[in-house]
Amino acid sequence: MNQNLRVLVAQANATVGALKLNYEKAISIIQKGHKENVDIIVFPELFLTGYPPQDLILDQHFIKDNTKYVEKLAREVSQTIVIIGAIHRDKDDTYNAAAVIQNGAIIKWIHKSLLPTYDVFDEWRYFKPGRDNEPVEVSLRSGKTLKLGIHICEDLWDKGMDYKVCDILGDKGVDLFINLSASPFHYRKQYERGELLLAKVNKYKKPYVYVNLVGGQDELVFDGESLIADGRGRWLHIGSKFKEELAIVNIAFGDKAETSEEKKFPGFPMERELFEALVLGVRDYFYKTGHRDAVLGLSGGIDSAVTAAIAVEALGNEHVTGVAMPSQYSSDHSVNDAELLAKNLGIRYEKVPINDLIEAFQNNFNNSIDEKLSGIAEENLQARIRGNILMSFSNKDGSLLLTTGNKTEIALGYCTLYGDMSGGLAVISDLGKKEVYAIASHFNMLKGYDVIPENTITKAPSAELRFDQVDPFDYDIISPIVNDIIERQLGVEQLIAKGYPQDIVHDMVNKIRNSEYKRQQMPPGIRVTQKAFGMGRRMPIVNHYSHNEHKF
Amino acid sequence: MNQNLRVLVAQANATVGALKLNYEKAISIIQKGHKENVDIIVFPELFLTGYPPQDLILDQHFIKDNTKYVEKLAREVSQTIVIIGAIHRDKDDTYNAAAVIQNGAIIKWIHKSLLPTYDVFDEWRYFKPGRDNEPVEVSLRSGKTLKLGIHICEDLWDKGMDYKVCDILGDKGVDLFINLSASPFHYRKQYERGELLLAKVNKYKKPYVYVNLVGGQDELVFDGESLIADGRGRWLHIGSKFKEELAIVNIAFGDKAETSEEKKFPGFPMERELFEALVLGVRDYFYKTGHRDAVLGLSGGIDSAVTAAIAVEALGNEHVTGVAMPSQYSSDHSVNDAELLAKNLGIRYEKVPINDLIEAFQNNFNNSIDEKLSGIAEENLQARIRGNILMSFSNKDGSLLLTTGNKTEIALGYCTLYGDMSGGLAVISDLGKKEVYAIASHFNMLKGYDVIPENTITKAPSAELRFDQVDPFDYDIISPIVNDIIERQLGVEQLIAKGYPQDIVHDMVNKIRNSEYKRQQMPPGIRVTQKAFGMGRRMPIVNHYSHNEHKF
Repeated sequence: MNQNLRVLVAQANATVGALKLNYEKAISIIQKGHKENVDIIVFPELFLTGYPPQDLILDQHFIKDNTKYVEKLAREVSQTIVIIGAIHRDKDDTYNAAAVIQNGAIIKWIHKSLLPTYDVFDEWRYFKPGRDNEPVEVSLRSGKTLKLGIHICEDLWDKGMDYKVCDILGDKGVDLFINLSASPFHYRKQYERGELLLAKVNKYKKPYVYVNLVGGQDELVFDGESLIADGRGRWLHIGSKFKEELAIVNIAFGDKAETSEEKKFPGFPMERELFEALVLGVRDYFYKTGHRDAVLGLSGGIDSAVTAAIAVEALGNEHVTGVAMPSQYSSDHSVNDAELLAKNLGIRYEKVPINDLIEAFQNNFNNSIDEKLSGIAEENLQARIRGNILMSFSNKDGSLLLTTGNKTEIALGYCTLYGDMSGGLAVISDLGKKEVYAIASHFNMLKGYDVIPENTITKAPSAELRFDQVDPFDYDIISPIVNDIIERQLGVEQLIAKGYPQDIVHDMVNKIRNSEYKRQQMPPGIRVTQKAFGMGRRMPIVNHYSHNEHKF
Repeated sequence: MNQNLRVLVAQANATVGALKLNYEKAISIIQKGHKENVDIIVFPELFLTGYPPQDLILDQHFIKDNTKYVEKLAREVSQTIVIIGAIHRDKDDTYNAAAVIQNGAIIKWIHKSLLPTYDVFDEWRYFKPGRDNEPVEVSLRSGKTLKLGIHICEDLWDKGMDYKVCDILGDKGVDLFINLSASPFHYRKQYERGELLLAKVNKYKKPYVYVNLVGGQDELVFDGESLIADGRGRWLHIGSKFKEELAIVNIAFGDKAETSEEKKFPGFPMERELFEALVLGVRDYFYKTGHRDAVLGLSGGIDSAVTAAIAVEALGNEHVTGVAMPSQYSSDHSVNDAELLAKNLGIRYEKVPINDLIEAFQNNFNNSIDEKLSGIAEENLQARIRGNILMSFSNKDGSLLLTTGNKTEIALGYCTLYGDMSGGLAVISDLGKKEVYAIASHFNMLKGYDVIPENTITKAPSAELRFDQVDPFDYDIISPIVNDIIERQLGVEQLIAKGYPQDIVHDMVNKIRNSEYKRQQMPPGIRVTQKAFGMGRRMPIVNHYSHNEHKF
């Protein structure tokens, strides 16, 4: 006999710490589910608290308030089964948990068993692992009973783990797997998730419901892309990318379950995926920190152009200000390119030349300490004067300053603290120089003409901090090396074995190590790769390690 | 029958990543031990790699090089038992370990069982917990055999843990407990360690050797203060504070073991303990990052005075430059106090007035965007001009800029990003305003006169960013509240119950939450309390939590 199960996939955007707001959003979704007569509503991991709540979890008030909201929410639930992520405090133990709710009561708490503690994740810091994985038997409004294999995010990612949650549940017998996730985006991660999920489906021949968080939180972007597979491993549902979505999906049970046309993953090119992730990251960072307006420096170069394009897409052109700050070292074309970009994007454009300020500083030093700045000190001074000007815009307008550095130059320390590193959000700090160019082309294609001026894309990159300066790197060579070092964590031997020139490899590794102190003071960047700078990469500043020196 | 055991306590300073240097230091200590005919040499936790190596542990080259150095070191060891902290890679598992070495070979690897993952510690991120705790039987050069209960740092801190390493070892029968530690300092931590250790001694009536790391590593200071207790719980050895020390201690065994006069903990007043910790932290940060010279702004106020005093004690007066940067808002006495301080400390003093620079910026804005800055934007501009000047000194002289903010004002966000927050090391960022004053008095007492001018200590604190400005806080009231919020993690209800005024409490909590974005860009500070800003406190920037709003 075939039966249908109506599941509401609540791919929604929670805000960290906003218990009341998240609660209210959950209630409105539950009401919609009631109205639509769904059987089960599934929310993402820790939906009630937002993810990751980090050290808020160490605040006892926070845990108690979380509990009160879950209990309050439970009272609003009818015969529909609601499964929602929240913290569960049981005696002295704290769990990353899911509350299973029906008829006004929490009928079961599910505890996350595998606690990710790598890269950006710190769950051992906060939680105790669950070890009580049991299928939950529920009665639907139809009278039918179902055994649910409910588990949380990492519990699916059990490769190399002795403890395999889905298998424990599957072996005990479930009718349906349900996973509540807050799985942050990185490029192409949806395919990894799909593969893991299908492996379980293929093993146990049961449908699988995977509900992922959507939205930005500090450095992280959650992409949604919730998934439902039927018991034969066909996609019944592939959720939207980077968007909130309430989807009601019918899952057919029984031997001859008919599935309507199978869904397919949309084939996004890399640059579109990265672009949309960054747009969501910027939009949510502004919205959730209470900002509407952005300001950034426009140098006429590719990095500031792409940052501006992302900002406009995220915030609207009326909320973005671009400031050109030419010095005597700036070429005419730089200023023209900046101005043309601003015009094309339709953003407010200001020009604040800095020659008189450089001169004022130099005179000041000359008068007070009988010296003038030269070399790096002079170059950095220019960058810092620009940082001051931009922060003055930020302070006077209440706007948030965006930094424009890309991952390649940040890795090598080719940036100035309190200069071009000043700002509240490092929009493209997880994009290598090559990806920056790819997004520029994508953006122009999207808009149908060269919004980002062709000259900006084709000219040689330069910081323009002295005459005839161009960036001292061939980005085509070093951008992939930096990605291999940071993202794929290859060591010098592997890099050289890959065919990269030995001297460049050693130089890169040393530059990356020696610029750690700069990155520890950078604003949060938006993570779009497997390994970004920031919370997921914890290198010491005092670090004397160099593999090259170790000859045995 | 009584017997003596000669133990060399290698309370030494390792450098993170400096495998060769740490190896060579270990070899020279081992040679000394050989010469002195000691039975056992005990090094601190992860001495070979330095502690904490953080994400260096994810570098496969690093682990392999570590292993090669342990093996190389083993070949240099004679009949003396050497116990040294290093990483142990066993198949695919990585352990925080101790190598027990004798006669040219590693005779046993000990694995740390309790992996701290709270505050500044991330050991679950890197290591697998050991579960194979066994006493190690060794033969000394005398022919005598001994069962050693070797364990690592946190293995002693088993309160509330199900798994108690010392008890497992003690129950199996040991003659001697040995603990290799890298236990970072906070105020009065030595008493906590002593108490834990004596509890084990009293339970098992066996001597206990506790060897702690000494030195600074980024935010952390390791204080040494190694300990040896005999089987009756009497202190045979209390190691120096904040200093390297190779101590040879005779431990008498047997029923009637005679102990020479019992040692006592030196009674350091709080301000001396904090002062010496910061001096070591500054000295090692400079030494280990390859810096000799410091520069800092001198405002005439207490914070910069105390920072300068610490820098002089750490680096020598010939390596410190103080820069006064008066504006129209600066009082005469501020400049005089700064100059007098510099004279008293014997440091290089420069005066760089900033009025013309403020004017240049204002004119520039007036010309380019037809505006002048006022309010916060104008105040911040002054702070950022000063930041630029100080960074120019840093860049041109190759000196490291010290920031001078204290914990109270950093907590409340009463500081300017890219202004007074610019710098490579935040020396007093873990001292509340009250502790800053206490250290000032201590320093003057130490030097026998008012090196820090009396006026600096007695006047009302002011940022002097506008006329007649004084800090908008009563530090006597708010400094303890901030400490209760950050260090003791009290919530609003507890704070109000303690008698603090409700409106001030809510205001403080909000200010702390809303200034998180600033602290995420601050330089490393030196941790001297149980909870400092920095790596040990991980609060989200996007954070909508406010307990006060939750009325049920």
